[in-house]
Amino acid sequence: MSALHEVRLRRTPEGRPREDDFVCVPAEPLAADAGAAALAQGQTLVKVHALSLDPYLRSAMAGRHLSGAIQPGEVVRGEGWVEVLASGDARVAVGTHWVAACGWRNVAWLDAATWAAARPIDQNIQPRTWALGVLGMPGLTAWAGFTRLAQARAGDTLVVSAAAGPVGATVGQLARLAGCRVVGIAGGPEKARWLREVAGFDAVIDHRAGGPPELRVALKAACPQGIDVYFDNVGGDVLQAACEQLAVGARVVLCGLIAQYSGAAPSGPNPALFIRARATVRGLVVYDHWDALPQMQAEVGAHLRAGRLHTREDLAHGLAQAPAAFCRLMRGDNQGKALVLL
Amino acid sequence: MSALHEVRLRRTPEGRPREDDFVCVPAEPLAADAGAAALAQGQTLVKVHALSLDPYLRSAMAGRHLSGAIQPGEVVRGEGWVEVLASGDARVAVGTHWVAACGWRNVAWLDAATWAAARPIDQNIQPRTWALGVLGMPGLTAWAGFTRLAQARAGDTLVVSAAAGPVGATVGQLARLAGCRVVGIAGGPEKARWLREVAGFDAVIDHRAGGPPELRVALKAACPQGIDVYFDNVGGDVLQAACEQLAVGARVVLCGLIAQYSGAAPSGPNPALFIRARATVRGLVVYDHWDALPQMQAEVGAHLRAGRLHTREDLAHGLAQAPAAFCRLMRGDNQGKALVLL
Repeated sequence: MSALHEVRLRRTPEGRPREDDFVCVPAEPLAADAGAAALAQGQTLVKVHALSLDPYLRSAMAGRHLSGAIQPGEVVRGEGWVEVLASGDARVAVGTHWVAACGWRNVAWLDAATWAAARPIDQNIQPRTWALGVLGMPGLTAWAGFTRLAQARAGDTLVVSAAAGPVGATVGQLARLAGCRVVGIAGGPEKARWLREVAGFDAVIDHRAGGPPELRVALKAACPQGIDVYFDNVGGDVLQAACEQLAVGARVVLCGLIAQYSGAAPSGPNPALFIRARATVRGLVVYDHWDALPQMQAEVGAHLRAGRLHTREDLAHGLAQAPAAFCRLMRGDNQGKALVLL
Repeated sequence: MSALHEVRLRRTPEGRPREDDFVCVPAEPLAADAGAAALAQGQTLVKVHALSLDPYLRSAMAGRHLSGAIQPGEVVRGEGWVEVLASGDARVAVGTHWVAACGWRNVAWLDAATWAAARPIDQNIQPRTWALGVLGMPGLTAWAGFTRLAQARAGDTLVVSAAAGPVGATVGQLARLAGCRVVGIAGGPEKARWLREVAGFDAVIDHRAGGPPELRVALKAACPQGIDVYFDNVGGDVLQAACEQLAVGARVVLCGLIAQYSGAAPSGPNPALFIRARATVRGLVVYDHWDALPQMQAEVGAHLRAGRLHTREDLAHGLAQAPAAFCRLMRGDNQGKALVLL
């Protein structure tokens, strides 16, 4: 795709999103003089190298996310790894690489407000796609949740759901490095294999192998002393089942609600479970923790370089594939951090 | 009632308990030589001056409480203010007053294990019934939840449910003394009046004045900046409504589930509410906090003597009235700490 294109939301998805909820359309290039005018007004032209596909976008499409709604007819929001082609903004040099809210486009004009929330990609980050995953927002989510909220101690049994995703896999490996016993919940045998063989999880439960009753049995078997830390990325039945197994003094980090993003039950676990366990339950919003990005990148980056921590990317190719890749993500069929390379 | 009597559970209540779920029956007095044998075996004879009626007993009757189940046919468990008439236990002097698990009896033989969990009533506590309420387990529940879990700060808006009960009223008044703005949720105009005029609450919402929608509107009006601390004694719809109004950084103490003790919904609030508020939610079990009983009694006792904190007792008279008084408590028709004087 050499010409300018963009992906728009055609309609608000019902339940799990479908490819035809989106449409990829040509975007009109700016004429040379209009481009000059845009630069004069402080805008910046970027090439998008990769788009980050993140579950929270589904929530935004339903109008239920902190970051605001994505309405039908709009270009799908979302961050990407961009390179500056032409700059009308003194803060942004041509040739530099950033993580920025470029939307689902292959080339984008970004205004000054976009750069206030953009982050330059440190030159130590290689491949640069890691700035969208294990060394970006998902990595920071994992690091902040684990380091600042979970208060895990060596010897704790930590359970994490959506364990093969970039947040879950990082949480589990940070926990392993901190001396915890780590149990992952993930969907399908390939994720389970990777988590056990590569990421070094002590046990993995395949939630697709049965329904909630089987999940309960498997959790009980994997955590005979109960769950000391539960890091939840999904909500719904999995959250309920995990809360039934909390040990006294348990900590629960509520991080994501994939199971609820496409509709489904608005209720949560019986509070009696939290009382019985004297649990501490904390809600995590990664936007509160940007201050820790350099520290996270230094720590997690060192683990990655030393081979103590591993990450996995699920790559689609070409902007036109973004809708299909996003639908795969929302079905949980991705293996690792979902990206679209352009 | 001069002879020995006891109240037994006739059947496990369904929904709200009814008076005929209980039966008050004569108890056979021990013959003199059997009494002597009991004393020789380390047992102790006590006169019960007052019984404490507590909502957790309903949960125990349903077999769902940490303290164990109360089965049909058994004497109803529960604590009371007792005076020692005859002692076979070196730790327990005749004539001393205690809070002990005497059960619903007017005279009781207590074994050695009972005394391990019993607490002498400090001579500074007057009236001694306060050792069952504001200076006893309910007071400790309030003090520990407020002091150790809620992390309230001056200027916070604190909301407490079951606000006219001995836990709720104490939480609210401790919060007022700590500089919080205090909003109570209670049932009926008389409780609201007492909380406003005597306990000094800033606002009181009568949850009987409407259904969940009216409660939402009233909470929003009473807490225009949101709820900083929510102390929950009831669960159910009230917990849900309060969690919808949490301010960013809110703390929630889960203390009791009166709305669930008689059956009803086992689910809790949507975890998205906790994430959005970056809330910290903590389950409270008073048994973890007995170490603080002397400190609580000193602090709350000083407030009571200085007239800075008030308490209210709802007194029934005679063991035969215990079932009716307990049913009143479970309907929320009591005004203050529910007790039966014998």
